[in-house]
Amino acid sequence: MPRDLRTTDAGFEADFDRLLHAKRESQSDVADAVAEVLRDVRLHGDEALIKYTSRWDQLDLTPDRLRIAECEIEAAVAACDPEVIEALKVAATRIEAFHRRQTPDTYDYVDDAGVRLGARWTPLSAVGLYVPGGLASYPSSVLMNAIPAKVAGVPRLAMVVPTPEGALSPLVLAAARIAGVDEIYRVGGAQAVAALAYGTATIRPVDKIVGPGNAYVAAAKRQVFGTVGIDMIAGPSEILVVADGANDPSWIAADLLSQAEHDSSAQSILISDDAAFIQAVRAAVDTHLKTLPRAVIAGASWRNNGATILVRDLDEAVALVDRLAPEHLELAVADPDALAAKVTHAGAIFLGRYTPEAIGDYIAGPNHVLPTARSARFSSGLNVLDFMKRTTLVGCDAASLGRLGPQAAILADAEGLGAHALSVRVRLGG
Amino acid sequence: MPRDLRTTDAGFEADFDRLLHAKRESQSDVADAVAEVLRDVRLHGDEALIKYTSRWDQLDLTPDRLRIAECEIEAAVAACDPEVIEALKVAATRIEAFHRRQTPDTYDYVDDAGVRLGARWTPLSAVGLYVPGGLASYPSSVLMNAIPAKVAGVPRLAMVVPTPEGALSPLVLAAARIAGVDEIYRVGGAQAVAALAYGTATIRPVDKIVGPGNAYVAAAKRQVFGTVGIDMIAGPSEILVVADGANDPSWIAADLLSQAEHDSSAQSILISDDAAFIQAVRAAVDTHLKTLPRAVIAGASWRNNGATILVRDLDEAVALVDRLAPEHLELAVADPDALAAKVTHAGAIFLGRYTPEAIGDYIAGPNHVLPTARSARFSSGLNVLDFMKRTTLVGCDAASLGRLGPQAAILADAEGLGAHALSVRVRLGG
Repeated sequence: MPRDLRTTDAGFEADFDRLLHAKRESQSDVADAVAEVLRDVRLHGDEALIKYTSRWDQLDLTPDRLRIAECEIEAAVAACDPEVIEALKVAATRIEAFHRRQTPDTYDYVDDAGVRLGARWTPLSAVGLYVPGGLASYPSSVLMNAIPAKVAGVPRLAMVVPTPEGALSPLVLAAARIAGVDEIYRVGGAQAVAALAYGTATIRPVDKIVGPGNAYVAAAKRQVFGTVGIDMIAGPSEILVVADGANDPSWIAADLLSQAEHDSSAQSILISDDAAFIQAVRAAVDTHLKTLPRAVIAGASWRNNGATILVRDLDEAVALVDRLAPEHLELAVADPDALAAKVTHAGAIFLGRYTPEAIGDYIAGPNHVLPTARSARFSSGLNVLDFMKRTTLVGCDAASLGRLGPQAAILADAEGLGAHALSVRVRLGG
Repeated sequence: MPRDLRTTDAGFEADFDRLLHAKRESQSDVADAVAEVLRDVRLHGDEALIKYTSRWDQLDLTPDRLRIAECEIEAAVAACDPEVIEALKVAATRIEAFHRRQTPDTYDYVDDAGVRLGARWTPLSAVGLYVPGGLASYPSSVLMNAIPAKVAGVPRLAMVVPTPEGALSPLVLAAARIAGVDEIYRVGGAQAVAALAYGTATIRPVDKIVGPGNAYVAAAKRQVFGTVGIDMIAGPSEILVVADGANDPSWIAADLLSQAEHDSSAQSILISDDAAFIQAVRAAVDTHLKTLPRAVIAGASWRNNGATILVRDLDEAVALVDRLAPEHLELAVADPDALAAKVTHAGAIFLGRYTPEAIGDYIAGPNHVLPTARSARFSSGLNVLDFMKRTTLVGCDAASLGRLGPQAAILADAEGLGAHALSVRVRLGG
């Protein structure tokens, strides 16, 4: 059974602390195995990539078949349900519109000391997008990872996706096409990450790799970090719903299960000020579980990691929300704005009774790649800035260097850095 | 002798590639030793912190002496040269003014489908700043790391600095005071990183740790990443100067040495289209080295890692600049703006003959914490956004959910996520 906590219980603090620090991820140590794959692909390029794809994906390739051809993509798209393609296009349009607002300002000015100062944002030159194969191969994730890169202006977006025994979701190819992905390769695992980071004869190297993957992919991203940039390593997904007693228990139960069905390590938590409502939601979860297609996964997640917390009032909920720093926060209350204003840490907030988190997973517009495992305390969801970098500009002339130089030289001397001081003083004619 | 390359040489590509991939950092593997320290501080808090400080800093502390008292800070500041304090204040004012421009826009709007959408930036709640002890203890770095955090609005900024045998630079304390650091602790090494990440009875935990440190500090930051955020792990510093023959060789030589004097692993590279000028700069470097206080370090860096590259013309330099993706780029040419516009990858650009990089290290305003080791291809210098995080907002009502919900449900079904679809459809009354 999911945990059933009450802030009025004597043991609440200890119980909540256990909930907060429960490890949900099974940390398999694959670092050594991954290091070997990376070394091999770095040294032997396509040959190693093809060897591992044969071994682990049961797919025999040649260098000219690594890349998925345009005609294959077109055939896949043509085979998709037009209604789903239309929904993907609507989603892509909305995601693009939201992300366009994130394009940062470049600035360039002369300050009152006569110093030219600026900051120039430019897109990354090449980005790699990892897309998992099999069950976790979601077209919505392709949109969420690829569109911000394209809005940023990244000219080359290369996608890798494993195709075990050659199988690949046509919708993933359709989403890549809609999002503007430039190249798609049918490889996955640590070997695909290595190919993107180091390059092979067929796959040119990229500057950053994004996208979710299994333990091998995560370990490979960690190891190539530095050679290329990476996005955050995502942990299991989480939802925290704060709901008062005026909600339909069935709706809230469905929201909790929409997170639980992702993965048995996912976590769904309900906070409410209404004890009877909490019990009604718990009952509604059990009812939904009788009919849901992924009831086995969702049920395991709910039983092992789920929790309900009864609070004295909604203000008491705020401190708990911040301590949980949830990836997704639903505020199904009468005045969600007032409550949202008090919350400090959350990846995304879903406001009111008519905003199930799933609307944000697919179509609302904001990114669904969000900080997990309490990292909303210090990080943000994926966005356009993740695909850009900033160069600062400084320009002095003789006059402005004359104004600032002496104090720079004083500081350089104070730090014992004589060449720093010299580089200023030679220009001051001293 | 530093490398002396010419793009017209037959072996240039191979030589340049070696320059590009030369490892300058000695990677000492301290991961296991650091893991033990982290575990110990996590379990035993102040007691372990005090034990390691006694062992490695030869300083015996009690819990009440971990924090540096206000009166000690005031005494240190009073003992500083007033001219240096004044220069630090001018620098702080300029750094703050530049960073104020980086404060991001929060937005909140209703789109034409009637969906409420927003993105809200908030400061991190608590940040830890690591400051190295001994020779690398630079007041300018305290300003550069602390001021963006304060501009972001971080309410609690806790600094740690080792004080071997009790010794500490009064200027570091002065810089911390000027920058608005809230708490200062006389501890360093992996044990200080652990204290910031996990908290002890005396030091409350923070949400992110920034600042440079030795191999132990870098390893500790890597290992606590996830529990807290970290900044980039900095490699040895680099400068790339592109200069035409109209410069004073002595000025450019000083600029190259200002990077070289940081560390024998630092790298200084000159690109010019004038062969005689290159030789004049190489001679001027040798001349400066006869008198500079840090000539041993600077000379070792220049001989082992330095290089000059003769190009046919400045346009040929642009491609080399982008391949080097330098931390610092000086453009000492007649039209630096035209050249800067062609460059894609650089952490900071210094424009024209009167802008030595040292002016940016201390007083210009932009941050001097910049991406090293070619990471300017995918990352940016430290800035206000590094101390903030973004929460996205979505709000639907019955009408707008009615508009978007059906397509979200179609996509959820296509991905086989029945509870996602259910959470939308129950609200559509279907």
